[in-house]
Amino acid sequence: MSTVGQVIRCKAAVAWEAGKPLSMEEVEVAPPQKNEVRIKILFTSLCHTDVYFWEAKGQNPLFPRILGHEAGGIVESVGEGVTDLQPGDHVLPVFTGECKECRHCLSEESNMCDLLRINTDRGEMLHDGKSRFSINGKPIYHFLGTSTFSQYTVVHVGQVAKINPDAPLDKVCVLSCGMSTGFGATVNVAKPKKGQSVAIFGLGAVGLAAAEGARVSGASRIIGVDLNPNRFEEAKKFGVTEFVNPKDHNKPVQEVIAEMTGGGVDRSVECTGSIQAMISAFECVHDGWGVCVLVGVPNKDDAFKTHPINLLNERTLKGTFFGNYKPRSDIPAVVERYMNKELELDKFITHSVPFSEINKAFEYMLAGEGLRCMIRMDA
Amino acid sequence: MSTVGQVIRCKAAVAWEAGKPLSMEEVEVAPPQKNEVRIKILFTSLCHTDVYFWEAKGQNPLFPRILGHEAGGIVESVGEGVTDLQPGDHVLPVFTGECKECRHCLSEESNMCDLLRINTDRGEMLHDGKSRFSINGKPIYHFLGTSTFSQYTVVHVGQVAKINPDAPLDKVCVLSCGMSTGFGATVNVAKPKKGQSVAIFGLGAVGLAAAEGARVSGASRIIGVDLNPNRFEEAKKFGVTEFVNPKDHNKPVQEVIAEMTGGGVDRSVECTGSIQAMISAFECVHDGWGVCVLVGVPNKDDAFKTHPINLLNERTLKGTFFGNYKPRSDIPAVVERYMNKELELDKFITHSVPFSEINKAFEYMLAGEGLRCMIRMDA
Repeated sequence: MSTVGQVIRCKAAVAWEAGKPLSMEEVEVAPPQKNEVRIKILFTSLCHTDVYFWEAKGQNPLFPRILGHEAGGIVESVGEGVTDLQPGDHVLPVFTGECKECRHCLSEESNMCDLLRINTDRGEMLHDGKSRFSINGKPIYHFLGTSTFSQYTVVHVGQVAKINPDAPLDKVCVLSCGMSTGFGATVNVAKPKKGQSVAIFGLGAVGLAAAEGARVSGASRIIGVDLNPNRFEEAKKFGVTEFVNPKDHNKPVQEVIAEMTGGGVDRSVECTGSIQAMISAFECVHDGWGVCVLVGVPNKDDAFKTHPINLLNERTLKGTFFGNYKPRSDIPAVVERYMNKELELDKFITHSVPFSEINKAFEYMLAGEGLRCMIRMDA
Repeated sequence: MSTVGQVIRCKAAVAWEAGKPLSMEEVEVAPPQKNEVRIKILFTSLCHTDVYFWEAKGQNPLFPRILGHEAGGIVESVGEGVTDLQPGDHVLPVFTGECKECRHCLSEESNMCDLLRINTDRGEMLHDGKSRFSINGKPIYHFLGTSTFSQYTVVHVGQVAKINPDAPLDKVCVLSCGMSTGFGATVNVAKPKKGQSVAIFGLGAVGLAAAEGARVSGASRIIGVDLNPNRFEEAKKFGVTEFVNPKDHNKPVQEVIAEMTGGGVDRSVECTGSIQAMISAFECVHDGWGVCVLVGVPNKDDAFKTHPINLLNERTLKGTFFGNYKPRSDIPAVVERYMNKELELDKFITHSVPFSEINKAFEYMLAGEGLRCMIRMDA
């Protein structure tokens, strides 16, 4: 029996209020409207951003809401005007979009789409300002336009990457956010050359994906920097060759790295969001050619500060968003790099739980255990 | 009668003390030692850096000294080990060098040679720590390894660019410092694409050379920013299409530029050295793809400061030194761009004086009159 055009009733994990465990509910998912796609989510994983908006500290809280944005699924049906996707397509929903028409989408250099750039405050669909989710007629807010903690979700077509149907969704699902963000920061923005040295600040999942980018690029040394020494053992699996804990030194970590490397690393990637780490990551790159890439999201009131001579000595400072990938145009090729065994993803997936136990994924993350917890939506 | 191997007696303009007019003296110029070249200077022009070290405010004063570093001449003789230059070659001495052996010289990206990088404190030759200039046996200090305010000078071979002998030295002489610095900042570092918009902060000689780089690159809009409105008329000759005087607005100039351009310029080049201008130059580039290049040299205690979100929104901040040109490898090709009439230089040369009136060149610069004053060494 076709569900096309019908409301679908399915399970979703609803965040009713800040910091309270998600509650498994039966929700109604309306059919996709103009330029929208309804997706059956098969796998979703938990990212820090979900936890951050669930805790709702320092933001406008928006509840009840269906969180989740790192996922893989299959198109169930498409709305009016959707021509490049059809039911059965394997897809990754992405928290930021690509309209293919704005100045950013038309630029080769930007992925910051004017229409569909990440919007954490929006809880409804763009088309009509309404939610597609409801419980007994009462609307439930969307999150990042993805809301993947639901067995079915509705997403703007501009936020859907169509991928190789042979790709295992329980693995490539992590490319819809964190792993692409870190990997792309290195391969698309820092662009280390074969044999160069790379420092990675922060050895969480995004930082390790940045290290994976350095490994794939043929970096000769990958120096991991973290305040938590427990992360060093795990990081070896990701090609990190040396470790620096700023707490072990009584001088700034940029000086420690400069001494280790004869003047500085060739590239650095900052994945913590700490303003001090950003400054260190910039100042630890070599003069003449060093490039520092900022990935981590800082606090609102932080100021990046450095002596301009550090720039004039031919260092480059750049920031990136989603690894500079355009979701629809570029992510399918990243999936292919996994299929070609160039990029490794399995090592990022350290835990797995059935959907019914999604709150365990939150517990693992809050305890700092592992990297990614895969949530199986059919269980 | 050959002068090879002999001390040459010639005229030089000697700075005996800070801020006092140069004094025309007969000096002895010793023969070039190992890896050195003795050059007959035909033309030299005055650059702000000469004036800055002549005024000797905020530096260790080093007098008596022969200043001058923007020049063109002909090789008179070469010292031991010099194989790629010979008497008669037309050359530009350059204030920073290229040894062709260090990590910087071997890197495609850097021109900050470890051996011969600009050193404003050094007053003697590298080889033996001695000066090649003297008056009645009393040594006179070198400046930047060039000291071109002398009819003959001795320069390390790594600081000498061999150029097309057909190039008029009274024009291409300005490529040995300021014009290459500004032009290279745009074409080598900011790299605007055809049709893009470029903001230039500071419309002195270096800023106008940066504008020339934007014109040559096919920029659609070149927005000049300066506190001195008298510069706007002159700047039109350099392709500057619009002008912004920060004093005319009661909001930050980066906001004014963002409004003029629908979100920001594609590229900006900062040529003043003012820390506030640096911050504005960075913050006025468009998110997604904007690139800001810093050229101007700041005060020692300045701090560059911005909110990191300005970086994370995919802006790039870079500094450059001598337009990222390697003096020996790259400057000959810049001379060719002039010979091919692609790059215009004549418009930079607004004054001309005989060597005997070199102090007039200082007066023009101190009065802010014109761009470059050409000094004819034979007169």
